[in-house]
Amino acid sequence: MNTKGILIVVSGFSGAGKGTLMKELLNRYEERYALSISATTRQPREGEEHGREYFFISKEEFEKMIAKEELIEYAKYVENYYGTPRKYVEQKLNEGKDVILEIEIQGALKVKEKFPDTLLLFVSPPGAEELKNRLVGRGTETMDVIESRMSRAAEEAEGMEEYDYLIINDTLDECVEQMHAVIQGEHLRCSRNTAFIERIKKELKGLKGE
Amino acid sequence: MNTKGILIVVSGFSGAGKGTLMKELLNRYEERYALSISATTRQPREGEEHGREYFFISKEEFEKMIAKEELIEYAKYVENYYGTPRKYVEQKLNEGKDVILEIEIQGALKVKEKFPDTLLLFVSPPGAEELKNRLVGRGTETMDVIESRMSRAAEEAEGMEEYDYLIINDTLDECVEQMHAVIQGEHLRCSRNTAFIERIKKELKGLKGE
Repeated sequence: MNTKGILIVVSGFSGAGKGTLMKELLNRYEERYALSISATTRQPREGEEHGREYFFISKEEFEKMIAKEELIEYAKYVENYYGTPRKYVEQKLNEGKDVILEIEIQGALKVKEKFPDTLLLFVSPPGAEELKNRLVGRGTETMDVIESRMSRAAEEAEGMEEYDYLIINDTLDECVEQMHAVIQGEHLRCSRNTAFIERIKKELKGLKGE
Repeated sequence: MNTKGILIVVSGFSGAGKGTLMKELLNRYEERYALSISATTRQPREGEEHGREYFFISKEEFEKMIAKEELIEYAKYVENYYGTPRKYVEQKLNEGKDVILEIEIQGALKVKEKFPDTLLLFVSPPGAEELKNRLVGRGTETMDVIESRMSRAAEEAEGMEEYDYLIINDTLDECVEQMHAVIQGEHLRCSRNTAFIERIKKELKGLKGE
């Protein structure tokens, strides 16, 4: 079977529980997955660490990376750059790990265009009410923020059908296992195992003549 | 999530262990799967039962089924018809069961053309030597039969890349679980969950205005 890792993009509504889900997936299957760390030109917030939440770099460094095509994708939000360094991703894929990028739909589609083998996963709560309840339940957001999150979710939902799989985040445990099963199943796709297919075809032709 | 079953075609080299695999899959997950039973005009062999191995019907009955489009696919081998009755398959799919057809590549491609949502699985041993060893190991086949099986396998291998997934039948237990995971993962495909996607989009638009 194929031994190279799969590039995976995980997107989903803010409040769908992506963060917790990723953490638990990596926790349970540490040897199978690697989480890509983005580079950004924004200032680190309190508690954030270089190389853990982000690689915090200068605008000049970032633009040099763009020029040298050292980023798989990048975008600019509110005067700050965010992007996915290519080197770490390729290294981990070659080690046979499935590499997860947690990015938004625009970035996801750019990655898929560049690397058609990319697996796009969309994490969604079971329904819109559920999403709103979770945001309200956090108790840390003002109603204004919640309304703007819901608006954003409505926008993001427009691209859902571009994704390969839909992961419903109902119970964490089931959701982690579903995600793992989907990714492991993808390793068995014929299109990801052309080397095996070529080999067995050649072997069968060889044995036929014996 | 979608509740309709998935139509699954399982093919693979004779000697790859498809029969045992299917039996074990249905044994473990009886409530999830249904195995389609083919209709044929050939005579029952000793120990075969109408409605278990095949539906044994007359040539006239079979041709009537063809004319009424009551077969999903059919083929003629050595003067005998073999085909998949549509009614049973549709009934089980509507009950939410994943229905498995065990047919060869020509039939598989015909089914996929008619029902593009069909999932095509190809079961293969880890290598050609392994396949030959298994056939020899059975001890029930003459070397002539084994040679002709190997020739047939070389022909069948030509179509392997048309399948969606490759299931390597190394150890039975692992293989059954892989097949189950692949099929269950397919239920999460965005293309199989358009109703859910439409619903959450509508809900999010509704809540936005609240």
